[in-house]
Amino acid sequence: MERNINEILQYVNIEIKQYLKKYAGKEIYDAMEYSLNAGGKRFRPMLLILTYDAFCKDYKKAIPFAIALECIHTYSLIHDDLPAMDNDDLRRGMPTCHIKFDEATAILAGDALLNLAFEIMLDATYENFEKRYVEATKIIASASGSKGMVAGQVIDMLSEGKKISNKELLNMYENKTGKLILASMKSGAILSGAKDSDIKIIENIAYNLGVAFQIKDDILDVEGDENKIGKPINSDIKNNKSTYVSIHGIKKAKEDYEIISSKALDSLKKLGFEQKMIYNYISSFIAREY
Amino acid sequence: MERNINEILQYVNIEIKQYLKKYAGKEIYDAMEYSLNAGGKRFRPMLLILTYDAFCKDYKKAIPFAIALECIHTYSLIHDDLPAMDNDDLRRGMPTCHIKFDEATAILAGDALLNLAFEIMLDATYENFEKRYVEATKIIASASGSKGMVAGQVIDMLSEGKKISNKELLNMYENKTGKLILASMKSGAILSGAKDSDIKIIENIAYNLGVAFQIKDDILDVEGDENKIGKPINSDIKNNKSTYVSIHGIKKAKEDYEIISSKALDSLKKLGFEQKMIYNYISSFIAREY
Repeated sequence: MERNINEILQYVNIEIKQYLKKYAGKEIYDAMEYSLNAGGKRFRPMLLILTYDAFCKDYKKAIPFAIALECIHTYSLIHDDLPAMDNDDLRRGMPTCHIKFDEATAILAGDALLNLAFEIMLDATYENFEKRYVEATKIIASASGSKGMVAGQVIDMLSEGKKISNKELLNMYENKTGKLILASMKSGAILSGAKDSDIKIIENIAYNLGVAFQIKDDILDVEGDENKIGKPINSDIKNNKSTYVSIHGIKKAKEDYEIISSKALDSLKKLGFEQKMIYNYISSFIAREY
Repeated sequence: MERNINEILQYVNIEIKQYLKKYAGKEIYDAMEYSLNAGGKRFRPMLLILTYDAFCKDYKKAIPFAIALECIHTYSLIHDDLPAMDNDDLRRGMPTCHIKFDEATAILAGDALLNLAFEIMLDATYENFEKRYVEATKIIASASGSKGMVAGQVIDMLSEGKKISNKELLNMYENKTGKLILASMKSGAILSGAKDSDIKIIENIAYNLGVAFQIKDDILDVEGDENKIGKPINSDIKNNKSTYVSIHGIKKAKEDYEIISSKALDSLKKLGFEQKMIYNYISSFIAREY
């Protein structure tokens, strides 16, 4: 059945609820459910599914991995918001997990979501016993660990209130969000059975997309519409955070954003994906204002 | 090469260090290393390896899974000790992770260790692409998640300062520690290629061992030697915690401990393991005073 991007997004949202019902223990269910369904864009799951779909139909096989990515992303937000970390009370206009529940519950809900990601991927790997399933799980695991997302969080924490270099900033971005974005597209391609040379191109696209993603975030923090982005603007300046804009200025940030985004789209064309959903999805993501 | 229990324990300790060097990102390395090497008994890794060894030689193949178990156990202790949770400053006579470092670092070190467990198991599964590797990883994942260890933590938290029934207590124990202990022995047996009927017996042994483990902890909290157990006695009474001793009294606790422990040893005999290291290990564990 041919579906469009919105239908897939809705399908992902429904599946997230179903998987949670199947997997999550009742003791911590509410907090997991609250944070998983607090208005996320499902960016990583969509990247995985639409990359898979571009190479091969039957994207349903990719669903467990897409959901796992959202679990990992959500856990990282819950822990990132904790008083000992960023101490944020609001996210996307809603109370953060430790405000809605309490700190202990938020810590455990985050732990449970990270664990859940692996439970889901391992069940899928067990059912479809093919090496590419193990490989996809492995790539996602490595991207979210102490040489990936967790390292990014630590660097972010240590950089607070400090001026850092462009190189340090890009290193932080690559770890904090870039590697999981890369893992989303790469694991989608691997699961689909794409050939190695195509996977290489996908990696390159995802890398550029990850950098662009962060630069856009920094631009929106200065020029965004508070109602659209769901948080106060100028928060980076207030928190004395180094950003791409604070280092390079808004003009160069916008220029670089255009250059890097165009690279990603050009590579998608090179793969012959101009008529595929992934091309439209990334195009509209690049033009996002939230 | 034939080794004895102590040599294997030392080997595990060395391997933990090697794996950490290979896998852990430098940004959070120190906190992960500190907690992983803070004097743990390596109970879960040893159960896995010695169970594997009882069925089949070449226990080195089981090492990645043994280390993963210790990573999961250690992460759970780090998060459990946090101010928002049990708020413990000392563990085994040493400062807890958030005291030695800080709270944010402790949260992230815990996250990184949980993630690391899966990175290690997935690499081993990728290298030895056999279904039983996926199965072992799956069993460990499920035991540590929201229907296992995390559920146990939540129940523990909610039970604080309350009188709970024997049934509720056993449910908490089963989730908080029992399921991971069971997973340790079961995954060891599965990895070794043991037959289904033997795996069933191992599950039964591990279940009893898990219950005995908790009852002994409760007994030691009343009658233990502070210097040997590394923490003040009567802490459960002070924290107003329901325990097996507070519900049943010390006499019945000791009797039940004997009965349940004997069951575990009898089943090991049934498997013909009386001359195996696992039998000696569990016997001396049952007699432990710390």
